[in-house]
Formats: sequence, C-alpha cells, structure tokens
Amino acid sequence: MDRLRYAMVGGGPRSFIGPVHRMAIRMDDLADLVDGCYSHADDWRAMLARVRGRADFIAVCTPNDSHFEIAKAALLAGFDVMCEKPLSLSPAEAEDLAKTAAGTGRILAVPFTYSGFPMVKLARDLVAKGELGAVCKAVLEYQQGSFRKIDFTKPLDRRNAWKMDPSRSGPSCVVADIGVHGFHLLEYVTGLETRSLLADLSSFAPGNRLDDDASILMRFEGGAKASMVVSKVATGEENGVRLRVYGDKASLFWNQESPNYLSVKYPFEPERTYKRRAPYMAGTSERAERCSRIPAGHHEGFIEAFANIYSEFCAAVRDRRAHDFPGPREGLRTMRFVEAALRSNASGNTWAEL
Amino acid sequence: MDRLRYAMVGGGPRSFIGPVHRMAIRMDDLADLVDGCYSHADDWRAMLARVRGRADFIAVCTPNDSHFEIAKAALLAGFDVMCEKPLSLSPAEAEDLAKTAAGTGRILAVPFTYSGFPMVKLARDLVAKGELGAVCKAVLEYQQGSFRKIDFTKPLDRRNAWKMDPSRSGPSCVVADIGVHGFHLLEYVTGLETRSLLADLSSFAPGNRLDDDASILMRFEGGAKASMVVSKVATGEENGVRLRVYGDKASLFWNQESPNYLSVKYPFEPERTYKRRAPYMAGTSERAERCSRIPAGHHEGFIEAFANIYSEFCAAVRDRRAHDFPGPREGLRTMRFVEAALRSNASGNTWAEL
Amino acid sequence: MDRLRYAMVGGGPRSFIGPVHRMAIRMDDLADLVDGCYSHADDWRAMLARVRGRADFIAVCTPNDSHFEIAKAALLAGFDVMCEKPLSLSPAEAEDLAKTAAGTGRILAVPFTYSGFPMVKLARDLVAKGELGAVCKAVLEYQQGSFRKIDFTKPLDRRNAWKMDPSRSGPSCVVADIGVHGFHLLEYVTGLETRSLLADLSSFAPGNRLDDDASILMRFEGGAKASMVVSKVATGEENGVRLRVYGDKASLFWNQESPNYLSVKYPFEPERTYKRRAPYMAGTSERAERCSRIPAGHHEGFIEAFANIYSEFCAAVRDRRAHDFPGPREGLRTMRFVEAALRSNASGNTWAEL
Amino acid sequence: MDRLRYAMVGGGPRSFIGPVHRMAIRMDDLADLVDGCYSHADDWRAMLARVRGRADFIAVCTPNDSHFEIAKAALLAGFDVMCEKPLSLSPAEAEDLAKTAAGTGRILAVPFTYSGFPMVKLARDLVAKGELGAVCKAVLEYQQGSFRKIDFTKPLDRRNAWKMDPSRSGPSCVVADIGVHGFHLLEYVTGLETRSLLADLSSFAPGNRLDDDASILMRFEGGAKASMVVSKVATGEENGVRLRVYGDKASLFWNQESPNYLSVKYPFEPERTYKRRAPYMAGTSERAERCSRIPAGHHEGFIEAFANIYSEFCAAVRDRRAHDFPGPREGLRTMRFVEAALRSNASGNTWAEL
Repeated sequence: MDRLRYAMVGGGPRSFIGPVHRMAIRMDDLADLVDGCYSHADDWRAMLARVRGRADFIAVCTPNDSHFEIAKAALLAGFDVMCEKPLSLSPAEAEDLAKTAAGTGRILAVPFTYSGFPMVKLARDLVAKGELGAVCKAVLEYQQGSFRKIDFTKPLDRRNAWKMDPSRSGPSCVVADIGVHGFHLLEYVTGLETRSLLADLSSFAPGNRLDDDASILMRFEGGAKASMVVSKVATGEENGVRLRVYGDKASLFWNQESPNYLSVKYPFEPERTYKRRAPYMAGTSERAERCSRIPAGHHEGFIEAFANIYSEFCAAVRDRRAHDFPGPREGLRTMRFVEAALRSNASGNTWAEL
Repeated sequence: MDRLRYAMVGGGPRSFIGPVHRMAIRMDDLADLVDGCYSHADDWRAMLARVRGRADFIAVCTPNDSHFEIAKAALLAGFDVMCEKPLSLSPAEAEDLAKTAAGTGRILAVPFTYSGFPMVKLARDLVAKGELGAVCKAVLEYQQGSFRKIDFTKPLDRRNAWKMDPSRSGPSCVVADIGVHGFHLLEYVTGLETRSLLADLSSFAPGNRLDDDASILMRFEGGAKASMVVSKVATGEENGVRLRVYGDKASLFWNQESPNYLSVKYPFEPERTYKRRAPYMAGTSERAERCSRIPAGHHEGFIEAFANIYSEFCAAVRDRRAHDFPGPREGLRTMRFVEAALRSNASGNTWAEL
Repeated sequence: MDRLRYAMVGGGPRSFIGPVHRMAIRMDDLADLVDGCYSHADDWRAMLARVRGRADFIAVCTPNDSHFEIAKAALLAGFDVMCEKPLSLSPAEAEDLAKTAAGTGRILAVPFTYSGFPMVKLARDLVAKGELGAVCKAVLEYQQGSFRKIDFTKPLDRRNAWKMDPSRSGPSCVVADIGVHGFHLLEYVTGLETRSLLADLSSFAPGNRLDDDASILMRFEGGAKASMVVSKVATGEENGVRLRVYGDKASLFWNQESPNYLSVKYPFEPERTYKRRAPYMAGTSERAERCSRIPAGHHEGFIEAFANIYSEFCAAVRDRRAHDFPGPREGLRTMRFVEAALRSNASGNTWAEL
Repeated sequence: MDRLRYAMVGGGPRSFIGPVHRMAIRMDDLADLVDGCYSHADDWRAMLARVRGRADFIAVCTPNDSHFEIAKAALLAGFDVMCEKPLSLSPAEAEDLAKTAAGTGRILAVPFTYSGFPMVKLARDLVAKGELGAVCKAVLEYQQGSFRKIDFTKPLDRRNAWKMDPSRSGPSCVVADIGVHGFHLLEYVTGLETRSLLADLSSFAPGNRLDDDASILMRFEGGAKASMVVSKVATGEENGVRLRVYGDKASLFWNQESPNYLSVKYPFEPERTYKRRAPYMAGTSERAERCSRIPAGHHEGFIEAFANIYSEFCAAVRDRRAHDFPGPREGLRTMRFVEAALRSNASGNTWAEL
C-alpha cells in the first residue's frame, strides 16, 4: 500500500498544535510530511501548487482568520484537508467549506481532539446502546487558567498575540477556542443536536478585549438540556474538561485529566469504572477498542487521542468511506454554536436558535 | 454551667433529618432533649406551652408548609429556634420571621449544613484573607439522583409524599430543597451577595409536578458570576455537592463527598491540598479549627458538620453574641433566591433581581 | 428498656481517644456516663467500687501498662469491659483477660475501630460470600507521619510521653499502637488466621527508643500471604490505612481516608465502587447496613465507626449474645502478633509462629 | 544533521513492546527503522551484518533468553544497543555485557520505562535536592492481574508461552519481568543503592511453574529501607505501579495510573501536587521539563515515557556523552536484584546481599 503524504500550513515548531499534528501522524506512521509552510513569509498558495500530486492531504494550523481561505483553496486544489478549529470565522464560511468539500468530493476534517479519546468513544457507544436510558441533562466544564499567566496590558508573545486580536482570531475567544471542543463533545457523546442556547460571556482578564469566560445553557432536540461552563480565567486549572451525562437509567462521567477511565453510575448498582483496553472493552465499544495501542494500565494521552482523529481521517482518505472523525457537519455546527453564543450574549442573554 | 435543653417539632425517628439533629446535639453534648412532638396527631402548640421554662430552644423539623407558623410561634413564646430549610414558603414569611426574631430578641438559625464543614469554613477564610485574590467566577453543582429511585406515578411513601405536594412543600422542589444549600454555600464562601439570577427549571422525572432540575446563572455584587446546577434526577449521584471558586490569584475546590480536604490551585505554584486539623490549620482558619474534634486523617462527616452548626448556635444561645451559623439573614436570602428562580423561569429565563 | 450506664478510667478531655469513646456513645445514645477516673491522682479501684450496681460497663482508656490490671479488676468486679488496644503488654496477660472474661461470664471488647467502618464490614462479607474467590494475597499499609511532628530529643508532652516510654507503653510502639489495627483489619476482612510472620522493625525518629516503622510479611492458614507496612515516620501522612485483598476472582481496595467507598476489581468486568447506604447495600451486607445512620452521599467518619463498635458491644451487653465487635479472641491474637513481630525482629528477621 | 537509523530484533507487530519501541521512536522522529528481524525464522546475525554502516543502533526485543547473545553480538559488531529488560538471564551475563559495552565504547541501554516519566524525573530531582530530607523508607507496589486472565493449564498463546517457560524466560517470572522495573524505580528516585534484600516468592496461579507474586524487604546503603510488592496475580489490577518515598522532611507519592502528577506531603504544610509542564516545573526539574512535549493538563502517557528513554539514549548515540537513561550499570544491578531475590527465597527468606 502506498504511503500517505501530507503538507502543512502554519503550526511551526514553536506553536502548540503544529507539533502535535506531526507527532500524532508519525506515532502511528500514518503519513509522511512532504512540505510545510510555517511562517507568514512563506507563500502557502505556492506550496499548494508545489505539492500537487505529491500530497494526499493538507493540515491547516494557521491562526483562525486564514482557516477558511486556505482550507477552501486546498479543497479546490484537490486535497483532502484537516483544518484546525474553529473551522472559520463565521457559520457562512463554514457552510461554504462544507459545500466546497461536498462539491469537490474532498474530505474535510476538524480535529476536535476530545472525541478522539477512547473513553469518549465508549461514552458515545454506551449512550447509543441505551445504557444510560433517555438522556435528560448534561454538564460540561472546560476550565483553563491560561489567561492568569498572561499580562494582557503588555505586548503579548507571538503565540498569544493573534488569539487576543479580534481581527485575527474572530469575534470570540473562549467560545471559539475551547467552547467548540465542549460543544462537540456534548453532541458527540449524547448523539443529540442542540436546538438553542443562552449564553452569558465575560471578559475578566484585565486588558483582554474578548470573551474569556462563558456560562451557557443549552437545549437539545427532544427536551434534554445542558449546562456548560468554559473559561480561560479559571485560575490554576490546566485543561479541566469534565463531562457528565445523565440519563434516566444511568449517568456517566469523564475527566480529561484522567482520560483512560470512564465511570458510570446507577441508581441501584455500584458505580462502574471502565478502563481503556480492558478485556470487556472489545465487546462494549469497537470504536474505542480499535483506537487503543497498548494494554490497560499503560496510559495513552492527548497525542494518542489526536492520532486517533488522524487515523480515522486517514482511513477515509484511503477508502473514501465514512469513519469516526469530525467533518464538515461538525465544523459547521460548532461555528453556529459560536455565532449563537455571541448573539445570545449581545441580546441580553436570551435564547438563540442554532 | 447549666445545661441547655431543647424540644423538637417534627423529625420523628423515620425521618432523615430529625435523627441527624438529635445525633449532632448529643455527640457534642450540647443540650438535652426535653420534649418532642413528632406526628400530626400531636399538638405542637401544647408542647410549646408545656416546655416553657424547661427548654432553651426549639428545633423545627416539620414539612416545609409549617416552618413559618411553628417557628414564629416559638419565637413569640420566647424560645430560640433552629428551623429547617427552606425557612418558609415565601420571602415574605421569611422576612416576617426575621423581624419576629429581631423584635423578640430571640435567635433564629437555619441549618445549612454545608457551611458547618470545617473545610468550607477554611474556604471562606481563605477567600476573606485574599488568598484567591478577587473572586470572578464560581461553579456550584449539587447533584442528587434520588428521584431516579422513586416511581412518582404510584403513591409515595410518607417521607417523599409531602415533598412532591406543592401544597405542603411550597412552589419549588429542587431549588427550595437543595438549591438553597448551594446558594448559601456560594454566598458563605465567597462573601459576596447575589444581585440577580437567571434560572432554567425542569421536571424530568415522570409524574413529578415540581422542578427536579435547575441550571442557574448568577451575578454577584461587584461583577463576579456563578453557574449553578442542582438536580434530583442526576441518576446515580448520591449527594454530589461540588464547589469551585475562581479568583484572579488562585482557585479552590471542595467536594462534599471527600469533605475533609480542600484544594487550592495557583497559576505558578503546585496545587495545595489542605486537610482538616492538620498542624497548619490552626493558624489558617480559627473558624475551621474550633469545630474539629479529632486529628487529621480521622475523618469527620455530615453529622459532625451538622453538630458544628449547632455548637455555634448553642454558643449564641448561651452568650447572646454573634457566632458562625446561618441566621435570619441567610434564611431570608435563600427564600429570595427561590422566589427569584421561580420568577426567572416563569418569565422565559430572564434575569431576576433578588 | 432501662438505659445502659458506664464509667470510664483514663481518657480525660485532653486525650485523643477518651473523648472519642464518649462522643461515639452519646451520638447513638447508647449509654450514660455515670462516673470517671481520668487522672493518676484518682483511685480507679475506688471508682469501680463506687459504681457497682450503677454501671453496666467500664471503658478503659489508660496508658497501655495499666490496661491489664484495670480490665481484669473490672471483669472480676462484674462489669463488662471495653478496653483500649493494645489489650495488654503481653500475650500472657491477654490470655489471662480472655480467661477471666470467660470465667466471669463478662464481656470484654477491644475497639479496633477500623472494623467498625461499614465498608470494612462489606469487605468482610464480600470475601465471606466468595465474591473474591480464594484469597491469596493482601497488602496493608498503615502510614502515619506523627513522629515527624515531635522532637524526641526534648521532653515530650503528656500525650506522647508515656507512649515513648517502654516501661509504660510496653516493648513495642508502632506495632502495638497501630500495627494491631492493621493486623485485626487483615484477619477481620479475610476471615483468615495468621500462622506466622517475619518482621523488620526500625527506629528512624532521632531520639526514639522504640520501633516506629515496621515491614512485616505474613502467612495465613491455607497458604495466603500478606505484606504489611506500618509506620509513624511516614512524613506527611495523616492516618493512611489502605487495604488491598486479592482473591483469584476479584480484589478489593479500601482506604480509610475515603472511608465510605469500597472498590472491587475484576479481570473481565469494570471496577465497581460500592457506597455506604446505597440501595444495593441492604442486600449485600446486612452487617454494614445496620451500622449506617444517614443516606449515601452524606459521609460518616471515624466517630461513627467507633460508635459502631460500641453499638454492637452494647447490644451484647443487653442480650448477652454474639455481636460483631472485637473481643477477647481478637485482643489476644493482636498481642500474639506484637510478640511475634518483636521475636522475629530480634532473631534477625526470621519467621515466627503466632 | 544526519538522521539516526536503527534495526530491530524481535518485537513483531503482535508483540506488546516491539510496537511501543517503534511508536516512541517515530513520535519524536528520533531515528528511521532500516531493517528488522521479527521472527525465529529470520537470521538476526545476517541482519546485523546487513545493516553494518546503515544503522546506528539495534533494538533488542526478543524473549529473555536471547537478550545476552544478541546484545553482545550487536555491541561487538559496533552498534549501540537498546536491549529490553531483563538484560540477561544472570548477573554474570549482564556483567559481560557491561564489560563488552565498556570495551567496545558502545552504548548499552535498557528501557526501564518508568524512569522515563517526567514526574518520576521530578521525584528524583526533589530527592536529590533534599526536598524530602534524608530518605528512610520507601514502599513500592507493582500490581498486575494479568495472570488471572490466563489459563495456565492449557496451551498458552505465543505472547505468553515463552514467559512461562523457564528455559526461555529465565529462572524468574514476576521478579525478572516487572520486579526489575520496581527495583530500578526505587534506586532511580532515591538515588540509593540496595545493599541486601529478603524475598518471599509465590506461585499462586494454578499451573504456573514460576514466581508470580513477591514480597521483598530491602535495605539501602546508609540505613534506609524499602518494602516492595510485585505481583501478576493481583486480580483486577492493570498496571498498578505505586511509589511512596518517605524522608525526614517530606514524602512523595507517584502512581503510574495517574502519571502526570506527583504529590509531596509535609508535616506542617499542605500537600502539594506537581503537574507535568506546569510553569514551576522548569525551575524545579530540568530533567522533567526537557522531556515534556505538550502543556500541562494535556496528558502524556506510557508511549511518551518510552520515547523519553529513547530521546536521552539517542542524544548519547549522537554526542557520546552521559544522558539520563538506564545503562549497563542499571542492567547489571537489576539482574543482581533478581538473583538475590531467588537466592533469598531459596534459602528460607533470609537476607541476601546484592
């Protein structure tokens, strides 16, 4: 089988996410990096031209404001695309990308990493199988304290400067940057579509012009609800992604900072803790099992979860079929989520349809 | 020193909270029970008359709809009163009780148990001392799954029947029953007053006529915010009270299901876990230290926390001075909270002033 | 039913364990304290004479060197006795007490608190029912750091002075003081009798003349083994009692610092966490259920566990039948354990029969 | 800089550890795999000859009985060598390899993975800096339940067959397979050399001819002691590596199943939890910091730890200087540990010098 090949735009060695893409791809030997355009000085259009015929897909890791343009150009140039979140600056752009992908027959993926964790995949399967019964409520926290380590009243370093500049990052910070992860996680695990939301955004960090904290109420199709809290001013938190889903038969809890476990609680039975790659996993979640590398007790982490997104994506690149990774639909839904959150907040915290 | 004496209305041996009052009082040898009126058949007015001169205070543990009447009568009869939450069915009643207490010079207390936990007292002191800096956000979960163990479509047992009957429990279930605990905990620890809230209430349990789940956004004086989730349909949860408070210098986390610990997280220092009665506690929180009985590592639980409310109350009964227990102000504020939550929900989830 | 009455020798208000006895007894309203002899100046023989006919049992909370004499006198005087651990200074004394109790028909109990925790009782029942299969191995840690808070090169305070004086505490410190708890916990949960042990004792705290750290290998009847570590120089630990029992079908884990939970792990099924007073407990461990006071999620701690020892003891005091508390047999076995540990250590860490 | 190249002997795609080597190397782009000899049918000597001049190092992942022969041949052929543990079947062989490495000037490494975890490196640095004071005691558990998933009375699958065959795996199973990890971890973190040990080995799994459970007491230079428990019959445990080190000023705890944290406990201060890549790590442990890839809160796991062993090894392959990975000394010491454990056990659990 011929090896896949890819090129990257953005995501240089000093960025956070660029190296993660490359480590993830290499770890599972999914593809060879054939070219890269890591700085503003470089011409990504030239690179796209250069790698025609030599690359199967393009990884887009640039600041938010160029995702749309680059991803669209890459799709139109015949490449499959893995584009960082948020997929675009607006739902309209995301819709355009979705149509472009559909029109060109190209694959567009967005690496919502948390749905790459095996225990999140198990969570989705448990819900889908009815183990929780009818889901009525979910609680999602995504708590970071990163903005408490930055002095926004002074010039920011490269990695943060564009994120805090609305002209480059778009009209939202915390919702677009990490809220979308939370939103995707909720919809991925519950299998439910959000109908409307009510958002209360704040800018607590002195000197910060964008939202850095959000409390969001959500309503799903069928009547279930969720409460979401996302923050970049949650002082002392590192990457506190915690998900609780309550059904009428059982509930589940997953904590990204202890990612190889999933707990399920019942009214009349002891709490159960599932462990990645334990013997019972094979029969419980084929989805989780096929993206585990090493035995239970030997932990896999964030890079492995990222690689799981890529391994499903690369399978699709090869066989052009559906696989378990976030695509245009998820990219678009998350942008509608961001837009609705801003709209709700601007209108005095009223309900906004997605 | 003469021993204190008390009498009890409601709270018979098969109730949950009546025995807790009695165990708590006995454990610390705070007072002797001299009389009790545990059933509907008994005449509590007669008992109040009977114990005049023989009891220092009355513990009111009846269903919600009689709190006001009994507490008021007891105050007017010259007794100090420990009245179960919710203090009344409306803010007006709570205000009346507050005035009655003030007018008679009697002490009125409401056992918001969670503020009796030593590590919650430490939390309050850490915030007050500025260890967290300026508080900007709090997250409070109070998750119970108790309603998943009950079939509301069939006749309920005594302990639950009145709670689900609006004519006896009042217009709210989950907010009035456990939401008030969460509200008090938030205000107690942050030292901030809630200005307004936005509530989304649900009734998820089939057959239940009252709210059993609530997501509430809150705004405090000075600009801080909170997100609260309280539920009785959080399947599989037992008594999941979890509090996170974020300041601009540090944050704290307390989990009632691991109550002897408090963790504090910093941007630039390792997380710290405080432990009840550890050597450093004496210098950190006199409030926490004086209500600990046994050395660190030997856990104290719910009954001990309850006893801490009583020990402060009994100190006030003796010396007529201020001590660390929830009184008329807290009883009234929690009733305003309940009323505002119902009002916000009824008006389409808009902001309601307290 | 007439109320029980008791008197106490030792255990004054500034001791650790005396107040625990009294709080435990009061919390459950088990008995009234009718007399006490708390200091050396008082004459406990006179008190025993004084309370004849007015007390049902005597609680002995004195330093170790007087346990034997007082307990024996109390038994001979016709009282039931709750005597603190270690029951005596030697197995011979313990045997004497056991015979005295048998001869007089009096009840002798030793408060090995940890077997009073409901989840420890569940552990015993799960093992007895075969849920773990055949037990082959156990690991018991009892880690305290208390001796790192004391300067043994200076005069000690009252509470510690006698513990470090071999003439008063007996020939062992850590093994006799807390090792006996660990030993009892192992035998109580596994239901197995220890046949032999191999002990390596140390005195790490500068200035300390007695053992403050021990590693002990144990062999049970039938071939199972255990590894035990007990220490008072485990710097920073408070009261780290951790028990793991491994059978050929499942294993269990209990941690005293999170006492309301018990986890059971299986080769082919998710780990289960049992919770005190959860609905399934009634059918799983009647022993655990009958000594729980409040609902799951509302934690009970050390004082409650202590009260559970007392409630079973008091039931026996009333009905003269067998109940679930440690008695002469356990008192004697633990003293044999101490003696064997000292013997093994003195002989170069060879196996010593119990 | 020219890329490193390597070849592998053993460790085919269905083995556990072979793929881990390859994933680890690829993730950090440390070297290219140029050749491999994965089955018995292949001729590793021919491969060694074949890759001369084309490979910088050889990874040896075969069953234990061929480690010595292959590693020695590779060293003599001029290759640096990463050889799986146990390094050999006897201390004599390990000594031979150490001498061969020294004589040829080649680098020999043994992947004791756990010393590759950043928080273990932090632990070592904290001890070395005196943060714990003088170490007096350590407790090491390495609990696996893997043998409870295997029926040894039936023919075993390939992956297990050689491990249970003394002629291929050597005279020890649990001690040589995972005990060596525990031993290395103890010496790596404490910085102390073991002087003697006392071992009690068992074979609990029916049909198993080798040791599958061990309790080991250890004595270090300078008087510190350790208690070690290693097992493959710890039913339900996955890979429970838990390390506690007690000094006279503080203690530390690391749990491989929550590997991105390290807790440090003090007598007079709150417990501290260090987190991988948190801001304070850079100034605390350069060793830990340089082998972290992604921000705190985004977890790294077993493969990353393995890659850390390789990145240090590869640095040495390039610059021929000392780096932080286990080499001949550690390979030899672990083999002496295995031999001493067998000797102690065979002589009735007496102390055996290393």
